[in-house]
Amino acid sequence: MKVVIVGGVAGGASTAARLRRLDERAEIVLLERGPYISFANCGLPYYIGGIISDRQKLLVTTAQSMSTLFNVDVRPDSEVVAIDRAGHKVRVRERSLNGTCHEYEESYDKLVLAPGAVPLRPRLPGIDHPRVFTVRNIPDTDAIQKFITENHPKTAVVVGGGFIGLEMAENLYRRGLQVSLVEMAPQVLATLLDPEMAAFVHHHLRAKGISLYLKNAVTGFFSQPDGSLQIALQHGSPLSTDLAILAVGVRPETALARQAGLEIGAAGGIAVDAQLQTSDPDIYAVGDAIETPDWVSGRRAPVPLAGPANRQGRTAADALAGRPAQYAGALGTAIVQVFDWAVAATGSTERSLQEAGIPFESVILHPLSHAGYYPGGTPLTIKLLFAPKDGKILGAQIVGSQGVDKRIDVLAAAMHFGASVFDLQNLELAYAPPFSSAKDPVNMAGYVAGNVVRGDLAVAHWHQVEALRAAGWWILDVRTPQECKDGQIDGAVNIPVQQLRQRLDEVPKGRPILVYCAVGLRAYLAARILQQRGFGPVADLSGGYRLYDAVTRDKSLIEEDLARLEETA
Amino acid sequence: MKVVIVGGVAGGASTAARLRRLDERAEIVLLERGPYISFANCGLPYYIGGIISDRQKLLVTTAQSMSTLFNVDVRPDSEVVAIDRAGHKVRVRERSLNGTCHEYEESYDKLVLAPGAVPLRPRLPGIDHPRVFTVRNIPDTDAIQKFITENHPKTAVVVGGGFIGLEMAENLYRRGLQVSLVEMAPQVLATLLDPEMAAFVHHHLRAKGISLYLKNAVTGFFSQPDGSLQIALQHGSPLSTDLAILAVGVRPETALARQAGLEIGAAGGIAVDAQLQTSDPDIYAVGDAIETPDWVSGRRAPVPLAGPANRQGRTAADALAGRPAQYAGALGTAIVQVFDWAVAATGSTERSLQEAGIPFESVILHPLSHAGYYPGGTPLTIKLLFAPKDGKILGAQIVGSQGVDKRIDVLAAAMHFGASVFDLQNLELAYAPPFSSAKDPVNMAGYVAGNVVRGDLAVAHWHQVEALRAAGWWILDVRTPQECKDGQIDGAVNIPVQQLRQRLDEVPKGRPILVYCAVGLRAYLAARILQQRGFGPVADLSGGYRLYDAVTRDKSLIEEDLARLEETA
Repeated sequence: MKVVIVGGVAGGASTAARLRRLDERAEIVLLERGPYISFANCGLPYYIGGIISDRQKLLVTTAQSMSTLFNVDVRPDSEVVAIDRAGHKVRVRERSLNGTCHEYEESYDKLVLAPGAVPLRPRLPGIDHPRVFTVRNIPDTDAIQKFITENHPKTAVVVGGGFIGLEMAENLYRRGLQVSLVEMAPQVLATLLDPEMAAFVHHHLRAKGISLYLKNAVTGFFSQPDGSLQIALQHGSPLSTDLAILAVGVRPETALARQAGLEIGAAGGIAVDAQLQTSDPDIYAVGDAIETPDWVSGRRAPVPLAGPANRQGRTAADALAGRPAQYAGALGTAIVQVFDWAVAATGSTERSLQEAGIPFESVILHPLSHAGYYPGGTPLTIKLLFAPKDGKILGAQIVGSQGVDKRIDVLAAAMHFGASVFDLQNLELAYAPPFSSAKDPVNMAGYVAGNVVRGDLAVAHWHQVEALRAAGWWILDVRTPQECKDGQIDGAVNIPVQQLRQRLDEVPKGRPILVYCAVGLRAYLAARILQQRGFGPVADLSGGYRLYDAVTRDKSLIEEDLARLEETA
Repeated sequence: MKVVIVGGVAGGASTAARLRRLDERAEIVLLERGPYISFANCGLPYYIGGIISDRQKLLVTTAQSMSTLFNVDVRPDSEVVAIDRAGHKVRVRERSLNGTCHEYEESYDKLVLAPGAVPLRPRLPGIDHPRVFTVRNIPDTDAIQKFITENHPKTAVVVGGGFIGLEMAENLYRRGLQVSLVEMAPQVLATLLDPEMAAFVHHHLRAKGISLYLKNAVTGFFSQPDGSLQIALQHGSPLSTDLAILAVGVRPETALARQAGLEIGAAGGIAVDAQLQTSDPDIYAVGDAIETPDWVSGRRAPVPLAGPANRQGRTAADALAGRPAQYAGALGTAIVQVFDWAVAATGSTERSLQEAGIPFESVILHPLSHAGYYPGGTPLTIKLLFAPKDGKILGAQIVGSQGVDKRIDVLAAAMHFGASVFDLQNLELAYAPPFSSAKDPVNMAGYVAGNVVRGDLAVAHWHQVEALRAAGWWILDVRTPQECKDGQIDGAVNIPVQQLRQRLDEVPKGRPILVYCAVGLRAYLAARILQQRGFGPVADLSGGYRLYDAVTRDKSLIEEDLARLEETA
């Protein structure tokens, strides 16, 4: 069997290595368009930031070591430009060291496409300006490094608030640049976070000195006489800057597949079945170029993440070796470092659930990363999305400084098994004071959500407060008077939960009540007291004042910024 | 309904709080023998070490706040000395501030026993010596603090290498004491770790300057003329020290239950059903005093851990409130900090599987805590125990400095759902370079174990090496010659894996082969090459030379220490 693999990074390299382990005698040819195989894609921003100081570290596996260890015929600088499906061969354009190209044909029994994704490049004036960079591969990264080293830029504008955008903002900041971030949406990380969770990230970025331009779009890139770059915006005056990073997303690289007449899915990725076979039974495809079923909704979409790409490579190799192989889909579990914070998510956001027409409820809580009595714990903000009927978990989002990765991984593992919020209550997680609490944040999320599913607790959300007030709900703040001094929801009446049983005569009968505290726990106690004593109906403000304050302040700041930009334009 | 709860720490306090949330009108009386309810049991060693500097922090909930927030009649210093089951009342001995006692009766509709566990005190000469301390509650801790502050001890001996023993060793060391640890077994943490995993902990303790006395027992405590303590040992001369910590384990506190004629289980804990009801339907029991089914074997045993105790409190409250309630058993997930390391486990050890007669296989691997190209990653050592037939996970043990808690929690969550090693392969965990690798260590454990279950890889274990050699196995070391210089398994032949395909003529045909590398990955590649080319049978040394070296060096050190002790005695 002769297997030709097109693309030698995550998915392609995994396919080759696994296939060799399964089949010592297969002929395996790995064709990579770029100069390097298996490079550390996800590490590129950190090399620019100087955290990864040795460029060699980015080359996880070299062509040489892949060839020696796995007996794979590795050919870098070799682009496949056409597939001849009938003839079972590909046309390869090889670039030699002196830059000349020559083309040849390579036959295959089975072909694996792992071409990856390409950065989106909106058709804007000046998009090809030499100071506008993307960050997708080693040559891109070398170009940015070279520019920074030679030109000592003082300022940078990052266009796009996704993973790469935020990682580049952080790493350019680390290199000493003043960084602005422009994002068309009203929030960063829109594929990962719902708006109220993103609000925490916005405040964190502002606190670190990143200038945020949200709900704003770049309309063009222009040269200034001094050589620097001028970036025109939808709202406000242009930004002058020394360089720009374009990070507005990626799309599946499907040119070759389209040219070969392979089926392309509705979401724009190469269509594959559960064995990762394309519409041609002799061609498999893996990685960022394909679309796979979403774990929650079943809807097919590209998932440009390294973990799924590696797993798909392994699956395709199993299939090629004639073993049982099945790729069931992706949760989309992802995490991104944002300065000293981590932001992570798994499963669906509210937006994607709405689009898929799946009913959901959510809770937000702010547990400490470890036992409160042990020093150094920091709050996590956890949002859990679940089916209102049976509590099946639909998604989770976490923001915080410590233990974010641990909790999202436990939630992703639980979702893998189709867990409900009641399962979360009973997970027996490791507790010692430096690591967690006797009730881990994941257990707590299960308890709060379980209360909602069982009907012990009704929740209201930050965006419903105005409507509830307008509908005549009484708003009860059960924090201490001291806490209320730093801000309250308009019109709230303060009765500390500790005094509630003694001051029930101050609570109106027969009127719906919205109750809140700082994070949600005391409001829950208050809600239980009031409900059982015949008041209400009572709803608890999910996420408490901490969330309400963060999201309303963020919204004000965004609107104020836009107004000021328009004014000064 | 009047509910009386005996014991106000983890299990009892959780029962009270949950019951109040479910039932605003129940009468709840909480009787606690000691002066404090709901104290931070697990934080006591860290208070002694000075990490928790404020004693108030140990008092997680005070009687006052419990009473105010939850309308619970909290009575500290109130010991229940007898239960009158027929009369539905308990006899309470209340100690007043001036030390006098008076007794009274308290009636109940339902009684909840949460008396906890008591430290084991072997009947040794001098066990009641004032310089021999236990660490179970706040008064114990105050006594140690007082002793250290007043007497400025220079040395301490910790008797027992369980959680508390190791935490006390670390925290006394942190206070500037020279610490010796005496443990009867050949290893520390015997309930958590198999011997080869404990070897890493032994080396770490030695490196930190803790003097280890393993396979050695204390035979008595004696006063010396200068007031210090002499500790007689089974092997070697007595140890002179300023204080001793007795931490040889705990047993369920069942005196009251026995006196009341409640059924006691075979493992010595109060017998309860899945609703945590004792043999008397009006009496429930929770926490360290009861025995519950082991998640893996189904065998009932006490599980003296805070997480299960809290969960049981909640379950009992649900049952009392007439709700569906079920406590399904415990995995025994646990973690302990050992200086800058963490040691964690979930499910069963080899020993407990052997006792339960459950067939198992195991793999050991040493993945990095995060992507190798991102600085700061450290190796984890992971042992995974699983059913040889279908790969169902039976237990896991992890030792390392970073990310131990995360991986054990993911594995514990997976075990909750009855996962197999193949599920671990497909868990979609969060990856960005600071947090993990595209193939997380948990995925890797699933891959390695899956290879074993599928028959793609046979493993041999460190303790089998001698026997295999004696049986004529050829031993192949596939590391680089440079690596071999620091030590090899006796009689091994070195062929680096990179040269193996070219040097197959040096490999004997028709002879079984044991292959190893540093950690296991290259040996796996070599094993696949050899098997497919008709050599072998081939077995891979699980955990590689890193494990073999750690465990054989540890065994030598223990025996050398014992020989030296006997010599100088």
